Amino acid sequence: MDSRSTPDQADASRRAFLKSTLALGGAGLAVAAGTRTAAAEGDPKITELQDWNRYLGPGVDAAPYGLPSEFEKDVVRRDVPWLTADATSSVNFTPLHALDGIITPNGLCFERHHGGVAEIPPQDHRLMINGLVDRPMVFTMEDLYRFPRENRVYFLECAANTGMEWRGAQLNGCQYTHGMVHCVMYTGTPLRNLLNEAGLKSSGKWLLAEGADASAMTRSIPMEKALDDCLVAWKMNGEALRSEQGYPVRLVVPGWEGNMWVKWLRRLEVGDQPWEQREETSKYTDLLADGKARKFTFQMEVKSVITAPSPQAPVTHGKGRTVITGLAWSGNGTIRRVDVSLDGGRNWHAARIDPQSFPKAVHRFYYDFDWDGSELLLQSRAMDEKGFVQPTKEALRKVRGANSIYHNNGIQTWHLKTDGALENVEVS
Amino acid sequence: MDSRSTPDQADASRRAFLKSTLALGGAGLAVAAGTRTAAAEGDPKITELQDWNRYLGPGVDAAPYGLPSEFEKDVVRRDVPWLTADATSSVNFTPLHALDGIITPNGLCFERHHGGVAEIPPQDHRLMINGLVDRPMVFTMEDLYRFPRENRVYFLECAANTGMEWRGAQLNGCQYTHGMVHCVMYTGTPLRNLLNEAGLKSSGKWLLAEGADASAMTRSIPMEKALDDCLVAWKMNGEALRSEQGYPVRLVVPGWEGNMWVKWLRRLEVGDQPWEQREETSKYTDLLADGKARKFTFQMEVKSVITAPSPQAPVTHGKGRTVITGLAWSGNGTIRRVDVSLDGGRNWHAARIDPQSFPKAVHRFYYDFDWDGSELLLQSRAMDEKGFVQPTKEALRKVRGANSIYHNNGIQTWHLKTDGALENVEVS
Repeated sequence: MDSRSTPDQADASRRAFLKSTLALGGAGLAVAAGTRTAAAEGDPKITELQDWNRYLGPGVDAAPYGLPSEFEKDVVRRDVPWLTADATSSVNFTPLHALDGIITPNGLCFERHHGGVAEIPPQDHRLMINGLVDRPMVFTMEDLYRFPRENRVYFLECAANTGMEWRGAQLNGCQYTHGMVHCVMYTGTPLRNLLNEAGLKSSGKWLLAEGADASAMTRSIPMEKALDDCLVAWKMNGEALRSEQGYPVRLVVPGWEGNMWVKWLRRLEVGDQPWEQREETSKYTDLLADGKARKFTFQMEVKSVITAPSPQAPVTHGKGRTVITGLAWSGNGTIRRVDVSLDGGRNWHAARIDPQSFPKAVHRFYYDFDWDGSELLLQSRAMDEKGFVQPTKEALRKVRGANSIYHNNGIQTWHLKTDGALENVEVS
Repeated sequence: MDSRSTPDQADASRRAFLKSTLALGGAGLAVAAGTRTAAAEGDPKITELQDWNRYLGPGVDAAPYGLPSEFEKDVVRRDVPWLTADATSSVNFTPLHALDGIITPNGLCFERHHGGVAEIPPQDHRLMINGLVDRPMVFTMEDLYRFPRENRVYFLECAANTGMEWRGAQLNGCQYTHGMVHCVMYTGTPLRNLLNEAGLKSSGKWLLAEGADASAMTRSIPMEKALDDCLVAWKMNGEALRSEQGYPVRLVVPGWEGNMWVKWLRRLEVGDQPWEQREETSKYTDLLADGKARKFTFQMEVKSVITAPSPQAPVTHGKGRTVITGLAWSGNGTIRRVDVSLDGGRNWHAARIDPQSFPKAVHRFYYDFDWDGSELLLQSRAMDEKGFVQPTKEALRKVRGANSIYHNNGIQTWHLKTDGALENVEVS
């Protein structure tokens, strides 16, 4: 076979090669660890021309705004109908089991809204700053676009993510147990730029952020955080915010619970104490065993989950070379280490953390191993830059009791069975 | 006004505040540099309840795979019908003027294909390695998924990007002059992993990459590059590659011209010299003034462009505080510096480069200034980590003549007029 060939010659040489290997009974092909060589079987998918090798496909005018392949139609956000009463105050989940890397595509970022999706013409939107400021102000979107901009990749996690797991393994899929997290690049202006424009009074210690949707979501934010790394953002992953993510403008509160990232942001009021709104008192508080509730538990703690294999992403290739992958994140900043266990937490192996990530963004980890086909109990455990280590669910329950919904960062277990199927289980 | 208010109180206090400022004739509102205060005019968009403040919007089951707001319907890929004969061998352009940050959303990544978009069922796709290897192999997609994975953010620029500008300012919009570049996070396995699996013979110096589409795109790649940072990639921005970007698998050749990033990758042949295929001889070569053509000019050189303001993104806010933003990139690695000129290259000002980027990815830059309303000639000029500086178009033509189409990295000029409109012009 000539070392250089035209496409036609290549077809001919491909057939010749395949014939010769077939003649050798596959002896010319090394079956490397876990990698099947379809050629050894004279696979017509490579020996014969396929339709897509011959016929012209759709042109560049087919999709001005592109969509995923029809073969990916199962990779969508999904809700759990019995979880909430009403689709307009409900949640759907990011299909983490089918994704990789650290960027969540905008079309797959989970949704949580309390009064449905507000559709606001950007030219009609206003953002007001009032309260303890020298100069109360109202901004149009065009006003906001004139402030200095920053771009930052951050995870957003709903405080209720993994909430159903407080009372044991319940939802059989990583999308449902952990899919209230996404991670995108935001473009906006630091919140401090707007507050400085209005002129903060020294008595201004708290900020109330209010949304323009029908739920009028309101949350109190300490001024120290507001002046630190919060953004008023109007783009995600390069394009305008999606409507369900607060178009035309939302608050970004890095590392803190998603409910505070007020969408459709219309008002920022500066005060001297928190407002004790519904969503920070009757909701988004942590009820302890003694009946007392912790409030203002804003930060999302160190957490990780194996996204594949997982109940919705079974092992279909049989034993041999296997990739375990997952996500780790922490409101404290970067992830320093992720360990993976194959035996329910008895022995731990250091996972490889992909280097391209950022503080308060998700980190992608991998653990490559040879599966011997036996049953395994898969777990991951993350440690963040401040040395905090993700706890077991058992350890969490000892401290927080059984009444909690929010802030479950416990270690998740997937039971891998001999047939490659997986199930959500708990080990103790 | 109480420093803490309920939403209802807030509505009341907002009205009171607006009334009082109106009573003061706006004197209570400082009109900061360039920031209009709509409140001073008693804007009903903030004083009165809007529909979206009252009525429930669509719920979480409305869009399993989400799309942009209806108000963003003009942010789409666009083609230039007269540029190419046929939509199946044509190009459309990323709307750079409407984007920000460094991530291009998958639906807006420009398309260039030579035989239309191949739609390949992933279970029917095969990737073959043959030629100067010890063990010729054929991989299914599932085989590929078992190799160790990496995630990397890279720009992809078509060699013909800005090609129409070789003969002077022609296309009136950044989307058309520079929109054959995009930047996403890829997930895949280093190409070297597959080559090592097949076992490279020491005589293997070049690689032929072949696509499975009807154009059977073929390009020769030096083995040194193939073993360095190339990826065989199956995901972009977390989800499966889009069909128009090579679903289910493409080659990623960081920093090198987009045509080499073979889509629908079906074959890798190892040889001892380049193949001299059509797309690396009659096309994708640089015809010099003396009639000779340079071939294998693979690398994309240091380049930048102001994306806004630009002809499709005029200044609509009048004079005062103005944000100039753009992109800079280089096949050599990172961008060390970007300068912006307001007067056609006489005086230069250091732009601010947003810190969250990566080598061989686009970098986002900003220059904030007060526009006095006069006519300006806006330019940007990038310098990369190896010290290469983006040249003027004039300097490029002196070296390369007037016959070129590819590899135009010259400095672009936008003429900003007093009414805020912009035009593509050349200065000398």
